[in-house]
Amino acid sequence: MSVNPTIGVFDSGFGGLTVLRALLSRIPQARYAFLGDTARLPYGSKSRRTIARYATESAQFLVREQGAEYLVIACNTASALALDAIQDAVPVPVLGVIEPGAASARGASQSGDVLVIATDATVQSHAYAAACRATGLRALEKACPLLVPLVEEGWTQHPVTEEVFRIYLHELLREASAEGMSPDTLVLGCTHYPLLRAMIEKAVPAGMRVIDSAEATAEAAARLFHPQASGEHMPLGQAIRCFATDSVEKFERLGSRFLERPVGHVELVDLGG
Amino acid sequence: MSVNPTIGVFDSGFGGLTVLRALLSRIPQARYAFLGDTARLPYGSKSRRTIARYATESAQFLVREQGAEYLVIACNTASALALDAIQDAVPVPVLGVIEPGAASARGASQSGDVLVIATDATVQSHAYAAACRATGLRALEKACPLLVPLVEEGWTQHPVTEEVFRIYLHELLREASAEGMSPDTLVLGCTHYPLLRAMIEKAVPAGMRVIDSAEATAEAAARLFHPQASGEHMPLGQAIRCFATDSVEKFERLGSRFLERPVGHVELVDLGG
Repeated sequence: MSVNPTIGVFDSGFGGLTVLRALLSRIPQARYAFLGDTARLPYGSKSRRTIARYATESAQFLVREQGAEYLVIACNTASALALDAIQDAVPVPVLGVIEPGAASARGASQSGDVLVIATDATVQSHAYAAACRATGLRALEKACPLLVPLVEEGWTQHPVTEEVFRIYLHELLREASAEGMSPDTLVLGCTHYPLLRAMIEKAVPAGMRVIDSAEATAEAAARLFHPQASGEHMPLGQAIRCFATDSVEKFERLGSRFLERPVGHVELVDLGG
Repeated sequence: MSVNPTIGVFDSGFGGLTVLRALLSRIPQARYAFLGDTARLPYGSKSRRTIARYATESAQFLVREQGAEYLVIACNTASALALDAIQDAVPVPVLGVIEPGAASARGASQSGDVLVIATDATVQSHAYAAACRATGLRALEKACPLLVPLVEEGWTQHPVTEEVFRIYLHELLREASAEGMSPDTLVLGCTHYPLLRAMIEKAVPAGMRVIDSAEATAEAAARLFHPQASGEHMPLGQAIRCFATDSVEKFERLGSRFLERPVGHVELVDLGG
């Protein structure tokens, strides 16, 4: 890794800014180019072939036009369905969010039973269950489709959001019990959910560990990309360039909540169709 | 209008099935071809030019390939941003949902002040405010982005949904009061909202009229298209053909809630792009 390497971070929207936030904290000496393919979201309702095409076009933009030496796919759907296609399409190391999340759950769980909450599309792909199974864990996945719109409405500490999460968690724990599982770990399998982490940690049963895939991915990136600790931290103003394929205004308005600092000017790019 | 005319109904998703349901009740002698452009939703975050292209492609499919003699644009965003483009692109009468909603509000309101709830994209277009103003009404619009996901989660009679609506309504009434308005009518400016109508009617202040744009549009279609009352009702099994550009399974699973009867087999079509 060069002293101030460029890491490309890709998401279908701007939720992946939670992954960028975690990366900034772990690898502060890197430059970052973040692309949100906002014109073509949501990926979740599209076919694997279409998602692979969109994701590889986005990855190629980051590598060829922004000089990314490493790529982080901060999108659960693209990580689940297109990681191989992206790795084939670009000549740099590529890391998704799902395997780091599963590996972190493996490290945290004593019982070997974990719960995963995610969007409908991610759950239907069963990518977390497969990644967990590969590490010897049993995973029960649940789609929580209301959590993303609640976060985007800004209701991250709102009684309605607490009530919605309580309902989802109750259903998930009841189902786990019916399947004879003893879950002790909950994986946040969606880039929006870290904004709810404090609320979620208060709501889960005592002793249950909460794993944030964004954090886990940043840790994995720090190991995989071997940054030189000697590299000087980039001044924040120079460290990040953000790009979006549409809805730049919404990105700028909501993105700072995910990044926990202003995202600054978001540049519009056209990747076609 | 022929005895059993074909009416094409177009939406970016399947929410427009509430308009189809209202049409079936008003014009039961027609055949219907419904197209949900589910591969390219949501339209709300896209540019006017892109929406116009998608919507005209969809309209042309209904007219050229399904023989639609009349078109109903059961999509608020497409009605707001692309009605002219669609009318230019097909040689049949075309009706959107916004003007009928505004006309119905004009008929209902005594005070001349109305409230409109809709998605973020529809509110940002200010299409309802403009249509209301053209009839002499003052309109205050509010985006209620949580209501669509709550409906899609099936929580149409759920305490959480009642609480969310109560919060939105409270904010809207407070804002109306601050602007010196005396609203007596609420327009449901989104195809998902008719599923919440019973709950909404219980929550609004006594005497406030609730206008359903889907109902208003079906009434306008019955007037505009002059159906021959002598036409025999189509047997339901032959009356409807549904098409979608993606996510056929979700359409079949959720669509029946909107149509209030099974949608049957949904045919996948490829409109490109």
